[in-house]
Amino acid sequence: MASPKKKLQGLVAATITPMTEHGEINFSVIGRYVDYLVEEQGVKSIFVNGTTGEGLSLSISERRQVAEEWVTQGRNKLDQVVIHVGALSLKESQELARHAAEIGADGIAVIAPFFLKPGNKDVLINFLKEVAAAAPALPFYYYHIPALTGVKIRAEELLDRIQEKIPTFQGLKFSDTDLLDFGQCVDQNRQRQFALLFGVDEQLLSALVMGATGAVGSTYNYLGKKTNQMLEAFERKDFSSALNHQFCIQRFINFVFKLGFGVSQTKAIMTLVSGIPMGPPRPPLQKPSREFMAAAEAKLKSLDFLSSTDLKDGSLDSWS
Amino acid sequence: MASPKKKLQGLVAATITPMTEHGEINFSVIGRYVDYLVEEQGVKSIFVNGTTGEGLSLSISERRQVAEEWVTQGRNKLDQVVIHVGALSLKESQELARHAAEIGADGIAVIAPFFLKPGNKDVLINFLKEVAAAAPALPFYYYHIPALTGVKIRAEELLDRIQEKIPTFQGLKFSDTDLLDFGQCVDQNRQRQFALLFGVDEQLLSALVMGATGAVGSTYNYLGKKTNQMLEAFERKDFSSALNHQFCIQRFINFVFKLGFGVSQTKAIMTLVSGIPMGPPRPPLQKPSREFMAAAEAKLKSLDFLSSTDLKDGSLDSWS
Amino acid sequence: MASPKKKLQGLVAATITPMTEHGEINFSVIGRYVDYLVEEQGVKSIFVNGTTGEGLSLSISERRQVAEEWVTQGRNKLDQVVIHVGALSLKESQELARHAAEIGADGIAVIAPFFLKPGNKDVLINFLKEVAAAAPALPFYYYHIPALTGVKIRAEELLDRIQEKIPTFQGLKFSDTDLLDFGQCVDQNRQRQFALLFGVDEQLLSALVMGATGAVGSTYNYLGKKTNQMLEAFERKDFSSALNHQFCIQRFINFVFKLGFGVSQTKAIMTLVSGIPMGPPRPPLQKPSREFMAAAEAKLKSLDFLSSTDLKDGSLDSWS
Amino acid sequence: MASPKKKLQGLVAATITPMTEHGEINFSVIGRYVDYLVEEQGVKSIFVNGTTGEGLSLSISERRQVAEEWVTQGRNKLDQVVIHVGALSLKESQELARHAAEIGADGIAVIAPFFLKPGNKDVLINFLKEVAAAAPALPFYYYHIPALTGVKIRAEELLDRIQEKIPTFQGLKFSDTDLLDFGQCVDQNRQRQFALLFGVDEQLLSALVMGATGAVGSTYNYLGKKTNQMLEAFERKDFSSALNHQFCIQRFINFVFKLGFGVSQTKAIMTLVSGIPMGPPRPPLQKPSREFMAAAEAKLKSLDFLSSTDLKDGSLDSWS
Repeated sequence: MASPKKKLQGLVAATITPMTEHGEINFSVIGRYVDYLVEEQGVKSIFVNGTTGEGLSLSISERRQVAEEWVTQGRNKLDQVVIHVGALSLKESQELARHAAEIGADGIAVIAPFFLKPGNKDVLINFLKEVAAAAPALPFYYYHIPALTGVKIRAEELLDRIQEKIPTFQGLKFSDTDLLDFGQCVDQNRQRQFALLFGVDEQLLSALVMGATGAVGSTYNYLGKKTNQMLEAFERKDFSSALNHQFCIQRFINFVFKLGFGVSQTKAIMTLVSGIPMGPPRPPLQKPSREFMAAAEAKLKSLDFLSSTDLKDGSLDSWS
Repeated sequence: MASPKKKLQGLVAATITPMTEHGEINFSVIGRYVDYLVEEQGVKSIFVNGTTGEGLSLSISERRQVAEEWVTQGRNKLDQVVIHVGALSLKESQELARHAAEIGADGIAVIAPFFLKPGNKDVLINFLKEVAAAAPALPFYYYHIPALTGVKIRAEELLDRIQEKIPTFQGLKFSDTDLLDFGQCVDQNRQRQFALLFGVDEQLLSALVMGATGAVGSTYNYLGKKTNQMLEAFERKDFSSALNHQFCIQRFINFVFKLGFGVSQTKAIMTLVSGIPMGPPRPPLQKPSREFMAAAEAKLKSLDFLSSTDLKDGSLDSWS
Repeated sequence: MASPKKKLQGLVAATITPMTEHGEINFSVIGRYVDYLVEEQGVKSIFVNGTTGEGLSLSISERRQVAEEWVTQGRNKLDQVVIHVGALSLKESQELARHAAEIGADGIAVIAPFFLKPGNKDVLINFLKEVAAAAPALPFYYYHIPALTGVKIRAEELLDRIQEKIPTFQGLKFSDTDLLDFGQCVDQNRQRQFALLFGVDEQLLSALVMGATGAVGSTYNYLGKKTNQMLEAFERKDFSSALNHQFCIQRFINFVFKLGFGVSQTKAIMTLVSGIPMGPPRPPLQKPSREFMAAAEAKLKSLDFLSSTDLKDGSLDSWS
Repeated sequence: MASPKKKLQGLVAATITPMTEHGEINFSVIGRYVDYLVEEQGVKSIFVNGTTGEGLSLSISERRQVAEEWVTQGRNKLDQVVIHVGALSLKESQELARHAAEIGADGIAVIAPFFLKPGNKDVLINFLKEVAAAAPALPFYYYHIPALTGVKIRAEELLDRIQEKIPTFQGLKFSDTDLLDFGQCVDQNRQRQFALLFGVDEQLLSALVMGATGAVGSTYNYLGKKTNQMLEAFERKDFSSALNHQFCIQRFINFVFKLGFGVSQTKAIMTLVSGIPMGPPRPPLQKPSREFMAAAEAKLKSLDFLSSTDLKDGSLDSWS
């Protein structure tokens, strides 16, 4: 059984994995990244080696090193460091889970296996359970993202009596727009023992009203401050302000979606906004085009997410 | 230009088309159906011949007769009667639009053509415009339901300066869970001239917080009263109560979804709850199984959507 | 029971519906169109009012007129005129089936209903049976095109003892690349009583080897002669020649697919190749771009499907 | 440039990875497995650690060991041993490629990365090239399986001048039913320098007529003999016999498809037919049900793919 822990809540940044221009991991900027999240964005929990972190594009050895660096740099600064340890190979996933426990992470998360897919709920739970058992003292989170995995097993069905099977189960990252499923996760979870974290940043407000206890996402890296303003307005029942904040965020995301938006674009935008060099993505991703970056930069400025004086090493000059 | 009209708002029931046991339209119960919606469910606007009404399974001649009967029976009782006139044949759609104007309907709605599909926004708008032009004095609504039509053109792009092209455009039925798209429809619509009606009943609360001005759906036929309670709680900022109402509705919908839920099930459940015989569906639909009905009835009772004494001619005895 | 008929076989052209520049049906060219198919392309059977014929974009009244004109013009010239009578409304489909019988068509075909969808094989068969029964003396064909309809019921399951349920069943148009399903249709059909017509023109050779008895498609309007050469080579077991013909056809289709290819492009290409004006498509389709036509024309010439001197009123000058 | 090699052709078995009842790799039976393929099925080339081999469910260390054992056991018995080295992590894929070269494999194959996906052809080629470059003396094959990867980049576009970018490129495994795409691969490949191996076993005949030079698949483990008979009939232009063999194979595959068929079922069927214990699959797969196995066994017998006396340790008694 997991030792009692403070609950994972509020905004959780899905961290980017910074890289050098040669595609090696750039450990040197992670300390600065932690400070930026806490001080500039008001974000105090992180989700490491997930989709945004290109976790599945890293080698197992790299995933271990990245996890370790975030735990080290986050000590006494971050509330919680959750390590995504999902892998197609159960053995490797277990190895990463054990490692997360050894380095003192605050929790682990696992995506559904998405190549050979679990055929039903019980098979999926069995897979998750085998990983969770490798880190029996760590809170366990399920990472539900059916559009990416193709695993359509509904989250509310998975949650049904899940602690009988996975005693360390503590919640999920719900990255889907099916708010019937999400609502029924909340509805089941009356004692509020679970963290039900929403993962579709551009419509977080819709999940807050449905009972989300927090959020995990990539935009909280650079729009965390704005999103925190939305959370605060929602808390004080000022829905009009909350909606205005949400619309402002949507205008940005809607704009970049039409240009093509994914992990590589996120990486470049974070460089631009934070001034911390995130570097290029790993293949099979490639750097966004100069045109994308110019358009995104103009949009960020027009929405006040970026001021001219903010630009340091993240400026457009590094795009070619 | 459409004459100024009161705005379509609140709950709009997507009406069922009642049929006799032989599959012919049962016009005789429509008057009673109107009274039931107004008196028992507090629903005062309707959307006729849509998906729930099996509009596309009816002949053009039947669609005209059905529209006419609802307009006649709704006079002085209903706020608005909107007729869905969408069809794969533009000519037939135009014929239905002209007819809706002649009989004094309050508006027309059109689904995107879904067999040969419009290749881009302009082609879709051109199709809609040709229908709207056949009823130049009637408010025009677009029926956006990408999961059924396969037409993925985003609603917020369609709305952009649409009144320049379709002067009678008054809003849309948004039947999708993409609340970025829906939110941006609301965000664009600052002067609030459009009715932005949400069409995914099981998560209406999430759209209300995003700025929905109303809702169109099949469950408002029999869960309108409960949903109105949710709307009222939301209006007075009692989010806790609103969420409780939403969860109660979700419990029912979630339950029947797992059993297989569609138009034929809606038809049978309405019979059960209202006591008004809706009859069987048209092929290619078929009556739900006796097992489905028994399970649905038990669930409705357990959630207090149905009391034992409510049961009249809608009872299970008619299911075989 | 259908009266004994010669079997539908060989190439069947899915006819285009010619239209005037104002979008009305251009009946005046249908006679010339029949002669062109027979004399220039060696195609003697037709499939009227299908996908290529924009059948579902026409009004019921127009579908009747179009069917009648093809039957009239085809008399003593064509082997078989099959009328597609599928519609979302069973009643309208039945009306069209009765009409096809009255005008002396050689058979009727029906697509699976694709808006409200049949939930299983039995429901689909029941729908088809109701249409077939309206024309009890006409051979009945099922039009299987799962990618367009979303109805994934496998054809070989449908065929299993289907004549017990639909006595007039005579075969199907199989428009899918699943050759396990198609092969098992052939395998079941040992007495060869059914016409098993393949509908994916660009890979017809793969279905011939699997036992197809013929083919229905849009390219046979203008590549019928070439395809007939492929059929003849296959018949005489000259596989090398057959494959060369198939590759030549593939080069054209592959080329236009990459540019965007559908009914409106087919219509324009037929105008170009045959010299018979097919006119514009109905909304929601729109004329192909001038760029598409220039590229397609150059490709047709390079593959010898079009000679410079062939160009008459179909020339590019009519594209704007 | 790869040293000149005899071309990969004929049937290539996608090998199963045998496991013990505890889920560890059972290296001890691989020698016997090689003999079985060669002697009983007439199959002399293998594709190791692919989908059927649960390659992506193994750890990198296990993949190396498995590859090594097949190469060792296959020496002087097998024609070619191709190792699938695809992985989501480019670094791990490169490590596996280098290892394959070290152990003396005859070629490597790579699947398209399928979590973060290549956005276009050039990005995909760049990823493949980076792997290929890690084994510059080994023939390189692309594993095209769009339905599993979601990477829809057409193979014929990929092939266009690919040796300029990947000098060791020698062909592909084409696991899709789009025979326009496959045909155009063949058509481009006039000098026949590439191995164009079809990967949809149940319709191999359709690809042979389109010019396939061989086939890679899971059923060749236990239906290799039958499939070789089909290949021989095709070679001697006896299409009627070839089709009969294909139908016989289809009857089995069609039957098990309807029961639910995948890697775990393949593993169990191979145990049954070969008598060599393949063991259970790795999570997230699970053993097929006893009901499945009984039905499959009966079908295998009725089609003469299994005789009663064949049953040894593969009998049903080991299913629970």
